[in-house]
Amino acid sequence: MKQIAESTVRRLSLYLRFLEDYRRQGLETISSGDLASLGGMTSAQVRKDLSFFGSFGTRGLGYSVNALAHRIREILGLEREWQVIIVGAGKIGAALAQYRAFGERGFRIVGIYDVDPARIGVSLDGTIVKDQRELDADLQSVKPDIVLIAVPAEAAQPLLERVTKAGIRGVLNFAPTPLHAPSGVTLRSVDMALELELLSYTLTSAMA
Amino acid sequence: MKQIAESTVRRLSLYLRFLEDYRRQGLETISSGDLASLGGMTSAQVRKDLSFFGSFGTRGLGYSVNALAHRIREILGLEREWQVIIVGAGKIGAALAQYRAFGERGFRIVGIYDVDPARIGVSLDGTIVKDQRELDADLQSVKPDIVLIAVPAEAAQPLLERVTKAGIRGVLNFAPTPLHAPSGVTLRSVDMALELELLSYTLTSAMA
Repeated sequence: MKQIAESTVRRLSLYLRFLEDYRRQGLETISSGDLASLGGMTSAQVRKDLSFFGSFGTRGLGYSVNALAHRIREILGLEREWQVIIVGAGKIGAALAQYRAFGERGFRIVGIYDVDPARIGVSLDGTIVKDQRELDADLQSVKPDIVLIAVPAEAAQPLLERVTKAGIRGVLNFAPTPLHAPSGVTLRSVDMALELELLSYTLTSAMA
Repeated sequence: MKQIAESTVRRLSLYLRFLEDYRRQGLETISSGDLASLGGMTSAQVRKDLSFFGSFGTRGLGYSVNALAHRIREILGLEREWQVIIVGAGKIGAALAQYRAFGERGFRIVGIYDVDPARIGVSLDGTIVKDQRELDADLQSVKPDIVLIAVPAEAAQPLLERVTKAGIRGVLNFAPTPLHAPSGVTLRSVDMALELELLSYTLTSAMA
């Protein structure tokens, strides 16, 4: 299938949450108007997004909640479980290890690593922090799909190179520094200080 | 000044980090080529971004590190201190309260609030978690600039309405749910599960 724009993928992910809410409430159908008002977009946008993947709607009845949720999970790659390891068990790493929304979406934390003896051996919601010296061996034996980088800025690029050399193809970086990934590796970054700067820019320019 | 595209603001923020690194190393000038190779973009892109704000470069000498850093901080609204409060002292809220990069960029955490008696009174790097019942009074007396929402998904929209009613114009949401802000309010969201879903989508479509 051809690559979908990131903005569309974001909306699909949003639709999926609404669909799951509907399912929990025992509702079997949802209209494009319902999805639109939940997400703050137009019905036309919703219909356009969904028509891209084939026909789900029945005029006057809306979409089947189960069928549409299944199809979106398939597209997003959420019909399988993803094995995730976290490197860095500082405040951010520890918060990520205990973040419930990951497990709910099929991202299973299978390991967390740190270099600090004070952190090694600590249990984070049942996952024991391991010595980072065990990382290379575990990358080979566990073969995780995704690595979350939660180490200090200066340690992030060497770590990225180490895990991608071991075959990791998906990385989510929380270190507050830009990283350069080799080709064939998907790298995304969450930079919380940058988000605040984008906010301060908007607030400043709104006041000017 | 006219609104700059978000992608440009992101690059300015990145340039600022490189400039600060240079300054720490005692370097006084930087070339567009240096900025480009640090950021993984072209020199032409760097020159285009910077020319937007006036002329800084001297042919053959590059940019003055201090002057350019100052100008970018001015544009991003970082020449002042921003007062930030956090609502929700769970794992994510606590990690945010102790996140050093915020302070380094001029975002000062002036309060953190929770409803859970087990969390109230706890010290997070010197900031004591307050009872959320004190929030409305503190919004009036402290007049923070920015609120970070780190409460459970179902509590996030009511909280957003409460703080914007109290005059807050900048909100960064970490609750894993989409929020709807009244007009005149700048709302950004960091959704870590969504970032993993964007990653799983890319990994899945790359394998297809």
